[in-house]
Parts: sequence; C-alpha cells; structure tokens
Amino acid sequence: MKPLNRLNFSAGPGALPESVLLLAQQSIVEVPGVGLSILGISHRSDWFASVVAELENNIRELLGLSGNYRVLFLQGGATQQFSMVPMTLLRGKTTPADYLHTGYWSGRAIAEAGREGPVRIVWSGEADGFRQLPGDGEPVFSPDAPYLHYVSNETVEGLQFHHVPGRDDVPRVCDMSSDFLSQPCAANRHSLIYAHAQKNIGPAGVTVVVVRDELLQDAPTNLPGFLDYRNHIQSHSNYNTPPVFAIYVVLLISRWLLNEIGGLARMAEINRSKAELLYRLLDNSNDFYRGRIETRDRSLMNVTFDMASPESEKRFLAEAERAGFTGLAGHRSTGGIRASLYNGLTLAAVEQLAGFMEDFQRRYPCA
Amino acid sequence: MKPLNRLNFSAGPGALPESVLLLAQQSIVEVPGVGLSILGISHRSDWFASVVAELENNIRELLGLSGNYRVLFLQGGATQQFSMVPMTLLRGKTTPADYLHTGYWSGRAIAEAGREGPVRIVWSGEADGFRQLPGDGEPVFSPDAPYLHYVSNETVEGLQFHHVPGRDDVPRVCDMSSDFLSQPCAANRHSLIYAHAQKNIGPAGVTVVVVRDELLQDAPTNLPGFLDYRNHIQSHSNYNTPPVFAIYVVLLISRWLLNEIGGLARMAEINRSKAELLYRLLDNSNDFYRGRIETRDRSLMNVTFDMASPESEKRFLAEAERAGFTGLAGHRSTGGIRASLYNGLTLAAVEQLAGFMEDFQRRYPCA
Repeated sequence: MKPLNRLNFSAGPGALPESVLLLAQQSIVEVPGVGLSILGISHRSDWFASVVAELENNIRELLGLSGNYRVLFLQGGATQQFSMVPMTLLRGKTTPADYLHTGYWSGRAIAEAGREGPVRIVWSGEADGFRQLPGDGEPVFSPDAPYLHYVSNETVEGLQFHHVPGRDDVPRVCDMSSDFLSQPCAANRHSLIYAHAQKNIGPAGVTVVVVRDELLQDAPTNLPGFLDYRNHIQSHSNYNTPPVFAIYVVLLISRWLLNEIGGLARMAEINRSKAELLYRLLDNSNDFYRGRIETRDRSLMNVTFDMASPESEKRFLAEAERAGFTGLAGHRSTGGIRASLYNGLTLAAVEQLAGFMEDFQRRYPCA
Repeated sequence: MKPLNRLNFSAGPGALPESVLLLAQQSIVEVPGVGLSILGISHRSDWFASVVAELENNIRELLGLSGNYRVLFLQGGATQQFSMVPMTLLRGKTTPADYLHTGYWSGRAIAEAGREGPVRIVWSGEADGFRQLPGDGEPVFSPDAPYLHYVSNETVEGLQFHHVPGRDDVPRVCDMSSDFLSQPCAANRHSLIYAHAQKNIGPAGVTVVVVRDELLQDAPTNLPGFLDYRNHIQSHSNYNTPPVFAIYVVLLISRWLLNEIGGLARMAEINRSKAELLYRLLDNSNDFYRGRIETRDRSLMNVTFDMASPESEKRFLAEAERAGFTGLAGHRSTGGIRASLYNGLTLAAVEQLAGFMEDFQRRYPCA
C-alpha cells in the first residue's frame, strides 16, 4: 500500500494503523472465509458472535481484567455515557456523586449528570483556565458518594491524570475516551470505564464500556431498554443491531495491540516517546512554542501549545497543512495548536512534525 | 470486481449494491481528494459537513420533502427512536398516543412508549398471529391523540402497509426501518419518519430521522442532550461525534438511487418485480411453499413462507446455503423461511433463488 498523502494529527476521529486499514478495506467487499461484505453480515450470525467474543477476550487480556467485569460495545459515544451513568447510579439518590471538573469534557459530563441527580464538584480547574489537575491526594473525596466521575485525559486542554484519583471504597467511573488502550490503566481499581472508539481504538460509532457486575445491582428497572446496561450484558452487546463494522475494526486494533505491538506496556513506551519528543521541543524553543499545561499533568495523547500571536498560529497551521500535516488546529473552544498522538500515529510521523516545527522556528524566528 | 461468493437474502443488515461497496472500500484507505482514511477524518471537517449537506439534499429530493422538514442522522437504531418519540411527544400527557400493533417491531415500540406515557392500542393483529394489517379506514383513530405510531413494514412477519393509515389532523409517526427509500412514501403526510440504515440504505450504525419542525415546538426541555432532536437539528447532525463512515455509505446509496437507479418510482418497480416473482412462485406451488400473509398486505421487502414440516424447512435452508443463498432462515421468534429483497439485492439474484426453489420442489415433491 502506498503511504497516505497526509499525516493525521487530528484529535479524533484519529489516525489508525495502516495494517488495520488494509484488513478493514478487504472486509468491505468480502470478509475472508465468510463470502459476504461486512456491511451486509447479520449481527445474529455465528461469525459476528465470534467477533464480539474474541474482542471481549482481547480487551480482558490487554487490561488484565478480573472475572467480575463485563465488556460491552454500545452506540452513542461518551455523550450517551454522560447520561447513562447517572441514570443508572444517581437517579433518586440524595447523596451527591463526586465529579472532578478538569476541562471541557468533564464539564459536559457534569451538565448531563445534573439532570439526573445531585452532583458535587469536588475540584475545578476552571478558574485557572484548566492548566493543571488536582495532585495525588489533593481533593477531599466524599466517603459516601454513590461514585466519583473523572476524565482520565482531557482531549481539548491536553491534560492527563498520571495517578488514579479517588478512594478505593467509592466506585470510580472514568471517561477514558481519549487514552483507553494507549497504556495500562489500573482497570480493576475502577467500577466503570467508558471510551468511544475514535481516538485510539477504532472509527466513530462504537463505545466500549467495562463495568463491574456489582455496580449494577441496585440500578433502576424502569429505564428505556437501550439505556439499561443489563440488557446489553444479557444479550452480549446484541440487544439491538450493533454497529458491526465499527466493532470489527476495534477487533482488528485489539489484535494489532496484542500481536504487532506486544501489549499495552509496549504501546505506552511508544506513546511516551512520541509525546516526549514534542514536549522537549516546546521546552527548548525559548517560548516560541508555549506549552499550555503544567509539566506534571501533560497529556501523552494531546500536546497543546500556543504561539506568540494568532497570526503566527495561522501561518503555522497553513504551512503545516501544505507540508502534509493535518488536524493540528486546537479545539474550537480554545484555539491554539494541538498535536494528537494516538496509537495509530507512528513515531516517524511525530519526528517529521518535529522536523517541520524546528524548521518553521528557524525560518520565522520572530513569529 | 468478482461477484460475491454468496447471495444475501438476510433481513438485515442486508445486501448493498456492489458499485457502492467498491466506493466504500476505496474510502477506507483514502477518500478521493482528501488524502485521509475515512476512519480518521474529523467530523468537524469541511469535507464531512459537505457529506451531511449533500445527503440531506438527496433525501429531500428522493422524498419530495417540503421545506419545513429536517433530516437527521443519529445513532441507536429504531430502538432508540422507540423511546425518543414518546419522550418528546408523550411525557406528561394525559391523552394517550395511538399505536397500531401489527407485528414484532411495533410491539417493541409499544413496550417502550408505555414507559413514557399513556398508550392506546388502536388495533392489534396479535390474536390472528399477525397475518394481516388493518384495512384502509378500518380502525377508528382518536382525533385528539398526541400522535399515531405505526410500522410501515413489519420485517419479521412480512407485512407492509400499501396505504397510509391514520388521520390527517393527528401527527403520523412511522418506523420505516425496513422499507425507507425502497419506494415513494408520502413523506409529507407524516410528522416524523425514522429508519435505521441496515436494510435498504446502508450499514448498521446510523438512523435517519425526518421530522417536521412544528412537531417539536412543545417538546420537553429537560431531556438528556443526545435525546433532544433539537440539539441534533441545531448542530446539523454533529451534536456529538456522528458515525462518519456509516453516514458516508448512506450518501453513496442516495447517489446510487438518484443517478444509477433513477429515483424511488423506478426503485419501487424493481422491488415490485422481485417480490412478485417470489409470490407468484408461492401461489403456484400447490401449497409446497405456503405464504404466511394475506395477499393484500404482503411485503415487497420480506417474503415469508412455511413448508409442510420443520424437517422440510431445515433441508431447504441447508441446501440453499450450500447453493450460495444465505440469510433465508425466518426470524428466531417465528421460524419458517424469509427472503428479504432490499434495494441492494438484484432481480437476477431473486431469479436465481426462484430457480433453486422450483428445482427443490421438483426434487422433493413430497417434502
């Protein structure tokens, strides 16, 4: 396969590995051994049941999950989980759930939770412009909260937890949408993890949920069927027609992580190398590239920085686009520059970007 | 491209046209003119905005929609709509909505609506085993119902409305999941139409909603964000990350309908020819193949029939599978045989199946 024309630094949907794209492409016309397009295969077929079973096992293996967890493949993205979590765990409760407000996406989760029940914001980085996270042990978490919700990687700001916040006696619920399967993640210390696919593990249209059985014991029984986790558990993610193709691509990614990369510890090493390359460049640029985030809390997934002026950033983005680097504009709510370095993006691509950035600084030293 | 190994008579996800599969396949590695895999293209890109805009226009053109309708592309399938419709139109109401209970899927819709508000079953075919539909003008619809809900084609049973039920002064809500864009459909006589893609118009993972503006005027304002139609309208189906690839395939189907087929009237002719071929065969088989449905209400999409015994059906399905005809088993709730003839299945494929069926009857005349 010829290399893609452009290197994809988009914050999501993000780049996927080329070997996975080739297999996905083949399946569109005919899944090997099945004789049908994947777009026309029944979700009730034995073949699709085997896809779901293998993917669930691969995720169990990658995360080292205990036997009391279920792995689900749902629709609706993290946005649907912002509501499903409090519908399941907060409706009718009088004790508030603890939420950490660390950036744009945790803010969205808090807004939806507030519709369903009482919420306490344990800590907020808003006044500070979301440039850092709470330190390990810093906020005082409530011992009787129904759960603690946090976002492990804030995609917009470029913040990432490098410790597990909260108390071990309160269920932890984590939105891992933008760093799931990018590194080992202490999954067994969480009660529920959710992650849409379109960053590290697949295309838009499917969301992985990892949930501990006990968490659902007292869930309400009058929820709409598709919003009740137990229906999806009982039907092995086949309660209603699932997004067959998107789930298949996540399976291909899980095989790639296990067999080509060699597991999450190795994936984390690669991801760390990519991020360190760019952060070193920012730190050595004499404030030409200005990293936004407190060193301790920098994300390995989304490297955010500003330049001296909006004009400099505009020129940088335009020249980068012409040079074949795409998706580098910051989120519409923050502006600036953001380089997203998901699993599928190679170290070689980041080295090329670093080369471009050094060259740009040489050419426009006063930008 | 070589022809597929097997002909796909599955009730869904169903067969898609080969020319569409080829274009979809190409996009997995690189969308022409974009230089990126469709699986890694940002949903906030200009390119994707143009996909949504063109698809919306194509659906407007195919259906002849008036300007006061919105066209949305959502996740969650018809199952999500079973809940979104009554959440939006029935919560807090005391006057029941009218529902027609014509088969398996309308039954599922009724169960979910009952969680949200009062429901009146205007007519039910359950006692009769769902072998026919109400006649034109037969049930007495309520003039003050918030809406009437019906399913235009019952996929499991093989029943299809060939008239538009209900009153013009009560909003009609129709689940067209299994016959949307298979024929012209009097869209402007409906207030809300929904259809998941995986029958006639694309892969699993996206749902089309066509909704008249006025219907949403009094909708509740406290719904979870992703369940509020107005959020999806305001954001042009980009409220949260949409299923980019599935939407692109629906665009390819809409182009195929407009440019290769030549519109819905022509598509309906082809679909009618396919269904008539099989129904004629059933009617001339001396009860060897026993059609399930009252002639007047037979579906052009799902041809259902029984044979003399479960053993005959088992032999038929096994020999059909060996001969390359797949997906012919009836729904798990009914058994029997079901041949689904969605847009993507060619007349030639149906002729081959008819030939196989005649041959099977000759070889096993007493089956």
